[in-house]
Amino acid sequence: MHGSIEEGRSGLLPPGEGEVLRLPAPLPLDCGRTLESVDVAYETYGTLNEDRSNAVLLCHPLTADQFAGRDHPVTGKPGWWSYLIGPGLPLDTDRVFVVCANVLGGCMGSTGPASLDPETGRPYGLGFPVVTISDMVRAQAALLDALGIGRLLAVVGGSMGGMQALAWAADFPERVRNAAILASAARHTPQNIAFHEVGRQAVMADPAWRGGDYAGEEPPKAGLAVARMAAHVTYLSEAALEEKFGRRFQDRASLGYGFDADFQVESYLRHQGSSFTDRFDANSYLYITRAMDYFDLGSGEALSERFSGTKTRFLLASFTSDWLYPTPESRRVVRALHGAGAAVSFVELRNDRGHDAFLIPDPAFEAVLEGFLGTAMREAGV
Amino acid sequence: MHGSIEEGRSGLLPPGEGEVLRLPAPLPLDCGRTLESVDVAYETYGTLNEDRSNAVLLCHPLTADQFAGRDHPVTGKPGWWSYLIGPGLPLDTDRVFVVCANVLGGCMGSTGPASLDPETGRPYGLGFPVVTISDMVRAQAALLDALGIGRLLAVVGGSMGGMQALAWAADFPERVRNAAILASAARHTPQNIAFHEVGRQAVMADPAWRGGDYAGEEPPKAGLAVARMAAHVTYLSEAALEEKFGRRFQDRASLGYGFDADFQVESYLRHQGSSFTDRFDANSYLYITRAMDYFDLGSGEALSERFSGTKTRFLLASFTSDWLYPTPESRRVVRALHGAGAAVSFVELRNDRGHDAFLIPDPAFEAVLEGFLGTAMREAGV
Repeated sequence: MHGSIEEGRSGLLPPGEGEVLRLPAPLPLDCGRTLESVDVAYETYGTLNEDRSNAVLLCHPLTADQFAGRDHPVTGKPGWWSYLIGPGLPLDTDRVFVVCANVLGGCMGSTGPASLDPETGRPYGLGFPVVTISDMVRAQAALLDALGIGRLLAVVGGSMGGMQALAWAADFPERVRNAAILASAARHTPQNIAFHEVGRQAVMADPAWRGGDYAGEEPPKAGLAVARMAAHVTYLSEAALEEKFGRRFQDRASLGYGFDADFQVESYLRHQGSSFTDRFDANSYLYITRAMDYFDLGSGEALSERFSGTKTRFLLASFTSDWLYPTPESRRVVRALHGAGAAVSFVELRNDRGHDAFLIPDPAFEAVLEGFLGTAMREAGV
Repeated sequence: MHGSIEEGRSGLLPPGEGEVLRLPAPLPLDCGRTLESVDVAYETYGTLNEDRSNAVLLCHPLTADQFAGRDHPVTGKPGWWSYLIGPGLPLDTDRVFVVCANVLGGCMGSTGPASLDPETGRPYGLGFPVVTISDMVRAQAALLDALGIGRLLAVVGGSMGGMQALAWAADFPERVRNAAILASAARHTPQNIAFHEVGRQAVMADPAWRGGDYAGEEPPKAGLAVARMAAHVTYLSEAALEEKFGRRFQDRASLGYGFDADFQVESYLRHQGSSFTDRFDANSYLYITRAMDYFDLGSGEALSERFSGTKTRFLLASFTSDWLYPTPESRRVVRALHGAGAAVSFVELRNDRGHDAFLIPDPAFEAVLEGFLGTAMREAGV
């Protein structure tokens, strides 16, 4: 069977790994339904200070999880932001207490479609309610309540994590002193939706998906791998692909005149697709992409109004070669925040890595984040 | 069974429709194999003049076919360039004789993976040799030989059709007076390859594909539909998607909180995917995308050398919003042609439709094509 399903450890989180908190109260959702029983799996880095003023919530992107600053228990690889989390690093664990929680609907221990539905005693599958970015934020807020953290020093996130950071600032303004939104947007464009829909259809086209009811059976790995491949192309820039792979061959000197992976880029993509299926649940992929597609904080004045009266200090950063959440989407947010009278820093970073730039070491990016968080720490006296 | 397989009408070409010519000699291929028996399905528009000097070869893009100027026998829809082919139109059938042939490896009557392998008496499937753009051109040249056409007034093509037009000018320079290469490139970039590989993996992930051996069975429609969806997103610009669909809902006033097509763009893509499977063969999709990925006429001086001494007059046209074959790819070709001392016109057309712009009526584009072909006709005295 794919993953472990036991009380408080749903999805693919290995037994005995990480922290999981059962929320003390039911969680109401945007769709109108309520989840009676919700687990939130999370990791922390650093120490919460006495007056609980040094907590930073780090929000993860689509296919990452709470293992941002330590080796991943499934893949064994370093945490996805481990180069930014630690003593003396931008998320300086000598000074701040970083909390990172697996999103609602995820598959690394938080309640999601692979969790047991208390009403049926079977995994939810498609019986799981469709959740939104604001629902994810509401679950995180309940986790912070349980940890005794009222106001956050900062909420930080890239891509879908940035959407959560924006939703935090909009939904809980009094709890967010600073918000860093990286390579992100205030809404999903039709092109963003289109690419996600391709991925969902790839999963659903796999007979092993069984209408989402594959618990206890072989999961729809082939469909999920195709979905991952399609998405992965959108994370990379043309320049990055050109530099990493060009038209170079894999394991041969010339064309193979067949359908094996002739080109390095093909081999790379196939590996990205197949390895993904070991650490991600297909139904979670459907639910999380759906949440992102549903995300839309509004346009123009309506977007400004979501932040009216905000005291939060904002950083928005975009990357020149990111064509998935390009700079104009960040500028839209910046304009709306200016309209709301918010304190906003905005920087477009020259970087040819594409959307994934926010996951790759880059001195200029690190300096921006360090500067923003350094000021936040000084102003809060931590 | 999917499509008809009978002598001289392989793939999905309905019985009694269109012209099919059996080549009089075997066709040698770039891979080293030889196809002993090759059919080329084609359509003509206009009349060949007495000195056979008014023939224009139109090369079709990936998923189109020879039905460029007449209603399609499978879909009933107007030909894909019907607004450009006819009396008084840029491809003026009062003056020129247009030939358009289904490419080798295709599924609309030309020999391809759905054709019968004479050695086994069964459809080739993956036993069909991997063909190249130059192989397609060689089959077209043999067709023109059989039709008694030596030198072409022009070869014209967009996207993969433009690759064929370039290969024609490189491989048979003495047979090409003019060549119009639209929204195309002299090589597939790693990003182009990556998107095609996603599509191929989607087809191959479908259990109905059966390793390519699905003749007589239900074809892998689900996988092919996903491949088409993934490709289709790359044919449209962000601006076109924004204008056509935005975040507008389909059949509802608000979010549905489910996995039905909430957004118009989802519904559109699903329709593009499913309707495609009625007119296209999954194995042909693999072979033709492979031919495109293999296409690489070289870089810099090597690319120039492919055209050294050419007398062909060239038109290169790109579209500002085409991110699949963007303007820099056309400029690469223009530079190489200049290096070869060729006569080249180049125009980048302001158009927000994306790659599909060359398939959509647009006065500026039509004027460019009409000007180029008008000069060609005058110079040839037709």
